[in-house]
Amino acid sequence: MQAAKTPYQATREAPIGVFDSGVGGLTVLRALLERLPREDFVYLGDTARLPYGTKSAGSIRQYSLQAARLLHERGVKCLVVACNTASAIALDALTQEFAPVPVLGVLEPGAAAACRATRRGRIAVLATESTVRGGAYQAAITRRLPGAVVTARACPLFVALAEEGWTDGPVVEGVIHRYLDGVFVEGAEDSHPDTLLLGCTHFPVLAPALAQVLGPGIAIVDSAATTAAALAEVLDSRGLARSDQPQGRVTLLATDGAERFARVGAVFLGRPLAAEDVEIVDLAPASVA
Amino acid sequence: MQAAKTPYQATREAPIGVFDSGVGGLTVLRALLERLPREDFVYLGDTARLPYGTKSAGSIRQYSLQAARLLHERGVKCLVVACNTASAIALDALTQEFAPVPVLGVLEPGAAAACRATRRGRIAVLATESTVRGGAYQAAITRRLPGAVVTARACPLFVALAEEGWTDGPVVEGVIHRYLDGVFVEGAEDSHPDTLLLGCTHFPVLAPALAQVLGPGIAIVDSAATTAAALAEVLDSRGLARSDQPQGRVTLLATDGAERFARVGAVFLGRPLAAEDVEIVDLAPASVA
Repeated sequence: MQAAKTPYQATREAPIGVFDSGVGGLTVLRALLERLPREDFVYLGDTARLPYGTKSAGSIRQYSLQAARLLHERGVKCLVVACNTASAIALDALTQEFAPVPVLGVLEPGAAAACRATRRGRIAVLATESTVRGGAYQAAITRRLPGAVVTARACPLFVALAEEGWTDGPVVEGVIHRYLDGVFVEGAEDSHPDTLLLGCTHFPVLAPALAQVLGPGIAIVDSAATTAAALAEVLDSRGLARSDQPQGRVTLLATDGAERFARVGAVFLGRPLAAEDVEIVDLAPASVA
Repeated sequence: MQAAKTPYQATREAPIGVFDSGVGGLTVLRALLERLPREDFVYLGDTARLPYGTKSAGSIRQYSLQAARLLHERGVKCLVVACNTASAIALDALTQEFAPVPVLGVLEPGAAAACRATRRGRIAVLATESTVRGGAYQAAITRRLPGAVVTARACPLFVALAEEGWTDGPVVEGVIHRYLDGVFVEGAEDSHPDTLLLGCTHFPVLAPALAQVLGPGIAIVDSAATTAAALAEVLDSRGLARSDQPQGRVTLLATDGAERFARVGAVFLGRPLAAEDVEIVDLAPASVA
């Protein structure tokens, strides 16, 4: 592997690696492209092994390391883990293996965004089952804002709705009510969260529907924009930010299903995609147990 | 492996092996228990690697063989593949590897049930995306009933609803309408299907809601009861049916997440389950590439 043979020599011209268990991380890529349009990006979605949320911590670490190695072999100058599960479980292992390549997750930026947005310190985290159960968001928020009252609600159907491209209409509103009516109890307005943190990369496409159902006065934040700001800061501080081209290239890699990646991914990236835009790569060849 | 050391000697007393990618196959186990209450069953859900539907055919065959080997090592007298994807893709490989152990899938029994139920030869198959795209149900139906008009509709949100335990109410009805209004077009009653085949093991728990939305006159069939009947016939014809105990034992194995298996699986099996009821097994140890 190139990683072992050549020492890390970051160049401004190198691309930024972005890794997710599937297509949800494209909401993060979208924010990165808006914030850092001059950069080249290589995005890898491990679609053959998604979802990570139901896997054991050992498997998640192994899969994340394999994905990151492939991006490292492509010479990325830094690595963004655009997957909540991998950010919560594999960030330390990735940081250690790829040092001095900077590795950024989405969890801490998300928690930071929620803490900045809240007015009364009442934050509701919406995430997948495993993220809620792991408690990493809750811990990251209370570390920053010790008095915060954090509610966490697993909303697994949001993932299915987002993947199906159903982002508004009565079904979506019905699902939102069923998940959140117990959090926003009528007559108990004082105990309502003032901030919703979308703790899953799939959820930002449902933000308009959430805003409509919950009405004004609730801040809805996600990790994407804050992660982009954190990445911009890292690039600036290390002299790695690119300024020599007006717009960079995007390379999309997946481990299975180019057609589905393109069709579902278009919802998350917010632009049309074709199967030909997606290169299929193999992370776990038979010779690597 | 025991399979290689000892020749196959089926005994009546041996358990029946049932294998699925996760918990959905428990709807099949439920039908088997109703039909064959005297038998012992060993059910294995490959929850660490679900869903199979998005994986490549090679991976699905490999995973299915690994799962079946574990059941074979436990001395099962026959094997039921309670997973549509594995039935469609891996049945030949399984039959070949484990002969003379009988191997039954759910696809052919499901197609047979639909062909028996239909009055006008108009059948709608509801399944996952990969099953619909693979076309195996459509082919199995038209092989049996050459003049049949088969519509197939991917209903991926049904899986999420079933896993969440949401089996009735306005959200469920809204999802059913969104998927099926294009199949049951008002004013075109002559072209309506008269039979719905539930081509995914998750879907039977939604059958009551489907019946309510679609009204009378639509037959709703699934693979479970027909697979149980086929299994009973195989056991009878080989002299393997058990009659020496009034009620058999059920052993539940999973490759990850006993707590989630128990919680979600209870919906499908139709009885309470605790995490302690589920034994975690490893199908892919590091030494087996």
